[in-house]
Amino acid sequence: MGETQLFPPEQLFEFSARVFEHFGVPEEDAQTAATVLQAADLRGIDSHGVARLHTYFDMRQMGRIDPKPSVTIVRESASTATVDGGNGLGLVVGPKANAIAMEKAVAVGSGWVSVRNTNHYGIAGYYVLEALKRDLIGWSMTNATKTVAPLWGAERMLGTNPLAIAFPGLEEPPIVIDMATSAAAYGKIEIARRAGKSIPQGWAIDRSGAPTTDPNAMIEGGAQLPLGSDRDGGGHKGYGLAVMVDVLSAVLSGANWGPFTPPFALRQEMPARSVGKGIGHFFGALRIDAFIDTDEFKRQIDDLIRTLRKTRPAPGTAGPLPPPRGDPARRRGRRRVTRHFAADRNSPGLIRGC
Amino acid sequence: MGETQLFPPEQLFEFSARVFEHFGVPEEDAQTAATVLQAADLRGIDSHGVARLHTYFDMRQMGRIDPKPSVTIVRESASTATVDGGNGLGLVVGPKANAIAMEKAVAVGSGWVSVRNTNHYGIAGYYVLEALKRDLIGWSMTNATKTVAPLWGAERMLGTNPLAIAFPGLEEPPIVIDMATSAAAYGKIEIARRAGKSIPQGWAIDRSGAPTTDPNAMIEGGAQLPLGSDRDGGGHKGYGLAVMVDVLSAVLSGANWGPFTPPFALRQEMPARSVGKGIGHFFGALRIDAFIDTDEFKRQIDDLIRTLRKTRPAPGTAGPLPPPRGDPARRRGRRRVTRHFAADRNSPGLIRGC
Repeated sequence: MGETQLFPPEQLFEFSARVFEHFGVPEEDAQTAATVLQAADLRGIDSHGVARLHTYFDMRQMGRIDPKPSVTIVRESASTATVDGGNGLGLVVGPKANAIAMEKAVAVGSGWVSVRNTNHYGIAGYYVLEALKRDLIGWSMTNATKTVAPLWGAERMLGTNPLAIAFPGLEEPPIVIDMATSAAAYGKIEIARRAGKSIPQGWAIDRSGAPTTDPNAMIEGGAQLPLGSDRDGGGHKGYGLAVMVDVLSAVLSGANWGPFTPPFALRQEMPARSVGKGIGHFFGALRIDAFIDTDEFKRQIDDLIRTLRKTRPAPGTAGPLPPPRGDPARRRGRRRVTRHFAADRNSPGLIRGC
Repeated sequence: MGETQLFPPEQLFEFSARVFEHFGVPEEDAQTAATVLQAADLRGIDSHGVARLHTYFDMRQMGRIDPKPSVTIVRESASTATVDGGNGLGLVVGPKANAIAMEKAVAVGSGWVSVRNTNHYGIAGYYVLEALKRDLIGWSMTNATKTVAPLWGAERMLGTNPLAIAFPGLEEPPIVIDMATSAAAYGKIEIARRAGKSIPQGWAIDRSGAPTTDPNAMIEGGAQLPLGSDRDGGGHKGYGLAVMVDVLSAVLSGANWGPFTPPFALRQEMPARSVGKGIGHFFGALRIDAFIDTDEFKRQIDDLIRTLRKTRPAPGTAGPLPPPRGDPARRRGRRRVTRHFAADRNSPGLIRGC
């Protein structure tokens, strides 16, 4: 890991927004994009925050992203829409498409938007937190460049294809589920490589398809494994979830799917063929009060969180964490909101992929 | 395993339907319930088919299920509904609620139904296959009696909480994802116990919360582990998915959630308190042509299936199975449609839980 220097969030936000404007992104969109990046840093997911700015810059320099995209609805029904992102920044297209899903939910109970011709959209969790502000249950998914092998495969065919969903509490913080459908996030393998450490069994295979604990063997021609890792562990389930995210985000919208999803980082090779436009996202929103009284729902969520927190701990652990705190990234994030957060100065060029 | 005898599907279907009618279930509902059970056997998921009939019978005998329930919509919007199942058979309530989701999707693009006051609904996959018949992408989830510990917990707090979703191909069979959010299905642990075999590491803990490979240690006071099994394997993700299914099925509808979900089998103890009515299901449907031309979608699904099938195989394997055939249960099911299928005569009293 490189030397770490601390910056106040406001300063990094302003810096990000100015960089986007320098790309030719209109001021309002640049503010939106900086907000999405900042959300990652504030939640402790450094790999998806300001550290990514350099990659966005590279993509723009190569003419791979349109700074002033035309974001259009190409097909819609009362509760659904297909959006073409005009090859814009995912950080700008994503919030616009998510807003369409939320508007439809307010109008008819639920809204579902599949997006094509877009790019990397930051953390999946950002979008579902936006929905919470309006008492909506938000859903967010995206496909991504191939890094993951199907169960029993020896090569990269799918992205880490994350999905997120959130439920609000009344007095308790919301339950936020935000997870890659691979056994581990790609960033964790990069971190192990930089630290010269091995990775746990079950995260990766080498280029021959054999299990490996060497992060270099995964990064240099190997692949990540799906959640569940192997047959006994339920690796077919993580594989199935990755396919689900791919279909909803990309097949349904007309984007590229599976191994044909274009890369976010320049050093990754372009896919063999194109089967659609850009990458794909999928957003959903459900109006809580279309199902149940909103306060009653939130009281039950509080009760669920408190019930889970009281679970008898497994030996050698401090006990289970309710999902709002179940993700260690989230726990870091809660501290960071009240402290300054770290930016690893060496990471922009290193943390890539998804 | 007990001695196995083969019956033709039609004979078991008629037998099931007559048993339900004997319970007092109206003829049409009895036919529906028998159809859902038969779908499990035809897909090779014996634990959820006719083998369950005895448990349904027990539940009815104890007066725990209403054979002639009033299934009502208690709240709705154009694209959503909350349904009260009147404490009916899940095999009858589930298809009715799923039909409401499908009708709403046809009308406004998508339909989402959360169901309370219901009971065990068979296999999650049945409902999404019904949606496929109408060119809808179907979603199906249910909560279930507690058998699963949260990551770092030492006791049962959540059900195996399965989720299913399906996508149609044009020439290829559909992609059907139908999975418990636990590392393994409960039935596999029962099968290992009857066979006197150990279970893989990562499936279960004993009553102290320590990992175990002894199926008896899980069944007698231990717990199943969530998909991902431990922290390194992403056990917090399987835990998060189980909570997601619980909230959408039970908190959103006003059913019992988490450790308060009532049991399906009589020998399991009743929960300490009641936080809602019965168990909960969640159904969704998305009209494909609300997003994209249906035939174009199906052609892309065919392409995705064929692309995944061509993945280079991992050493010692025959290569990855595309999700429609990725589940060994499904492969058994395909054979069974053209052959007679097996009913384990010893299983009705043994295979319980979810």
